Amino acid sequence: MEIPVESFYLPEGGGGSLQQRIRQMVAEGILAGRFRAADRMPSSRGLAAHLGVSRITVTLAYTELVAADYLTARGRSGYFVSEGVPVQPEFRPVPKVESSVDWEALCGGRFSRMERVERPEDWRSYPYPFIYGQADPALFDHQNWRLCALQALGRREFETLTADRYERDDPLLIEYLLRNILPRRGIEARPSEVLVTMGAQNALWLAAQVLLRPGGHAVVENPGYPGFRAMCAQAGARVTPVAVDEGGLSVDSLPAGVDVVFTTASHQSPTNATMPVARRTALLRAAEERNFLVVEDDYEFEMSFLKPVSPSIKSLDSGGRVVHAGSFSKSIFPGLRLGWLVGPEPFIREARALRAQVLRHPPGQLQRTTAHFLSLGHYDALVNRMKAAFAKRRKAMEEAISQHDLKVAGQGGFGGSSFWMEAAPHMDTEEMALRLRAEGVLIEPGRVFFHPGTEERHFFRLAYSSIPVGKIPEGIALVARAMRGM
Amino acid sequence: MEIPVESFYLPEGGGGSLQQRIRQMVAEGILAGRFRAADRMPSSRGLAAHLGVSRITVTLAYTELVAADYLTARGRSGYFVSEGVPVQPEFRPVPKVESSVDWEALCGGRFSRMERVERPEDWRSYPYPFIYGQADPALFDHQNWRLCALQALGRREFETLTADRYERDDPLLIEYLLRNILPRRGIEARPSEVLVTMGAQNALWLAAQVLLRPGGHAVVENPGYPGFRAMCAQAGARVTPVAVDEGGLSVDSLPAGVDVVFTTASHQSPTNATMPVARRTALLRAAEERNFLVVEDDYEFEMSFLKPVSPSIKSLDSGGRVVHAGSFSKSIFPGLRLGWLVGPEPFIREARALRAQVLRHPPGQLQRTTAHFLSLGHYDALVNRMKAAFAKRRKAMEEAISQHDLKVAGQGGFGGSSFWMEAAPHMDTEEMALRLRAEGVLIEPGRVFFHPGTEERHFFRLAYSSIPVGKIPEGIALVARAMRGM
Repeated sequence: MEIPVESFYLPEGGGGSLQQRIRQMVAEGILAGRFRAADRMPSSRGLAAHLGVSRITVTLAYTELVAADYLTARGRSGYFVSEGVPVQPEFRPVPKVESSVDWEALCGGRFSRMERVERPEDWRSYPYPFIYGQADPALFDHQNWRLCALQALGRREFETLTADRYERDDPLLIEYLLRNILPRRGIEARPSEVLVTMGAQNALWLAAQVLLRPGGHAVVENPGYPGFRAMCAQAGARVTPVAVDEGGLSVDSLPAGVDVVFTTASHQSPTNATMPVARRTALLRAAEERNFLVVEDDYEFEMSFLKPVSPSIKSLDSGGRVVHAGSFSKSIFPGLRLGWLVGPEPFIREARALRAQVLRHPPGQLQRTTAHFLSLGHYDALVNRMKAAFAKRRKAMEEAISQHDLKVAGQGGFGGSSFWMEAAPHMDTEEMALRLRAEGVLIEPGRVFFHPGTEERHFFRLAYSSIPVGKIPEGIALVARAMRGM
Repeated sequence: MEIPVESFYLPEGGGGSLQQRIRQMVAEGILAGRFRAADRMPSSRGLAAHLGVSRITVTLAYTELVAADYLTARGRSGYFVSEGVPVQPEFRPVPKVESSVDWEALCGGRFSRMERVERPEDWRSYPYPFIYGQADPALFDHQNWRLCALQALGRREFETLTADRYERDDPLLIEYLLRNILPRRGIEARPSEVLVTMGAQNALWLAAQVLLRPGGHAVVENPGYPGFRAMCAQAGARVTPVAVDEGGLSVDSLPAGVDVVFTTASHQSPTNATMPVARRTALLRAAEERNFLVVEDDYEFEMSFLKPVSPSIKSLDSGGRVVHAGSFSKSIFPGLRLGWLVGPEPFIREARALRAQVLRHPPGQLQRTTAHFLSLGHYDALVNRMKAAFAKRRKAMEEAISQHDLKVAGQGGFGGSSFWMEAAPHMDTEEMALRLRAEGVLIEPGRVFFHPGTEERHFFRLAYSSIPVGKIPEGIALVARAMRGM
């Protein structure tokens, strides 16, 4: 690699002659691993001009660096970093700047304190990954995704690819959402009522910021998705956890004076409960009577392979009180970071403006690739393949679970991709997860799903979206053994 | 297209027999443009099962719909939406739900009220687009971008492509940033001190939220990038505009009790002033003495083609008080939405956690594509090509501008991609922009860059990053004529 001349700055002030400081500067760069064996140095003329020193000074410094075997001279072709230089570990820690600012105190865990479901970086290397929400290479349609990406990269789509637009999203993607995806949820919407987001996470975050004010009052499910708490907290709202039962969020337990209710009605996270239509209409009635709004996180609705998916809350929303969020994270892959938000036009307008402030817009290249993937039918084919595979895996899970007498706390009647499990009350599933990890089994301890102060430690989640069906019996057997061992 | 059975829901309650309601449901879908000529209907068996009604009811409804020419029967292959159905305008407006919520009042312009630089969707169709910050198809290396994208889409990179990871960014991209990009700015950083963001916009937004508290005090440049005001406002901070001169932000005019100073030192936006090194060190001294932090928006530093770029403020930061933001929007393309944030480890940790809350992470597919584009040297080649072209265009601009005696208010001594122009005090450049647009000329009125209450209406920006050099003389001539006409 040719080292750009801009990589060099004389240390401010600093002792010694110019020539010594140049030597030091180069040597430090090499020792810090920034410049590597065989990298080409700038010409002495180029560096001299850049540093505003005489060329002879640089030449002398280079000569000394050659003598010290930091550099090698190759006649006319110039100076190169020597093959002989000690190879440093990647990025040998740069000495910390002595800062007069107490950054720890300044930033102190404001955001990083939030809990989230953890998994090891290298989870794919574990034989029994009961891990939730990741793409399965055995099911994903890599070939066609690649072709759609290629199509989106065509010259004719240069504008879509490169343009910086926040006023509107990719018209192809919007059209497909309106014509094909939303109708499956019983939703009819106009383009001005839909926003493309960076996944459901981003959709829900935007909704929370637009709908909640400091001092506002939000309700979240308990146990529930930890992200909701963080979003509401950032909006400065008070958060009340409401218990879920086999029908999901309990409408009867809603507190007084609530502004916004967040719910995962299709597949309650993490219990997989599906809210019955009767309760959905009850929720909407309550919203009307007590004047609150509902944010529906409709993630994973596609994974209904046991019964036809029930209509979304939004589709029953005659009072116009529901904001609907969806995502391609489960049905395509999570790293895509694409989802959507459906709501009244004034709401979408604000969400779009906030989105522009925060990140401008989801990349056009991915919006267009996804639009092609959807409209060519690859999405439907993929979803069907996933549903078939998940149905098989779920069956294997059920058999193994009952064979070992493990207790299922929630499994949902429609499908999904995980079981919510309950261990004996005295068992700490975080402890259990650590032991199992040593045996190549990854489970998700349930504590993080509970609202602070209401933690239960003996629940855990077993997902089957990333584990081969053949591994399931043995994996569950290992879980059962670990539980007996506690 | 095959219409998925999930697209059908019987309208809740609703009068009439089941059969009538099915007919109504289908007809409405067709008239709303959701189902189109030649779309295939679900089989009567499939729809009956989905709706939980008898198959005969569906068959009778279908027969009636055929009679009414909504559907056509094609023997064994089933029912299709008739070619005869009236083709509706795309998405005939869905009747607005009568909502009991006053959404306008609820969301009321909280975010959408923010000013931003507007440009017409179809700006590329204008012959004289003096438009800022968009990619130029004549310069962009489409071919190699496509190849790098292909490489990033390879099966071997499945994990990078699909994984949902917020703990760390693409190691290849981080390595290239640390080894090659940041050193050009005189910055040595460790991986834990860098965060990949959705462009500089997202980097600066994250910085504002992490560094500012409600009631905090931020300083922005005036005129300056309108986005800063919005970000600080969202963090609940007080914002003081400070005037810029030919050296950029005036350090002497900094108010008392400031917490964070936002500056575009390399190319002040919109005046293009470059802050001299002396003033950068003065700013850092002031930060030390008066205990404030500096957020450096180092966008467009690559476009220094007149003089070697001066060291970033971060590179002079011995007190550890500077947060540095950069972007690939100007050097690759804005729709890519990739940038970076460099700062102390505790700061980056919080920014990463907030990023995870808001959007989880920038898509791996684009991070990896960019990493390839950088490490294969295409980025450097592109930047050099852009610098050469911009230098030519700038020369043409200077000639035309002086030929017509237009007044340059700011042009920067290092390069960049625009001129900051001053019209006669009585001229309203928004008015002028409208007139010019009718003649195919797009300019950017300057008002939005000024802090509310300090607006000047007779400035405007002329960018040359998207206009062919040959169009410049005529374009400037038209601008001059419009000014004479006012």
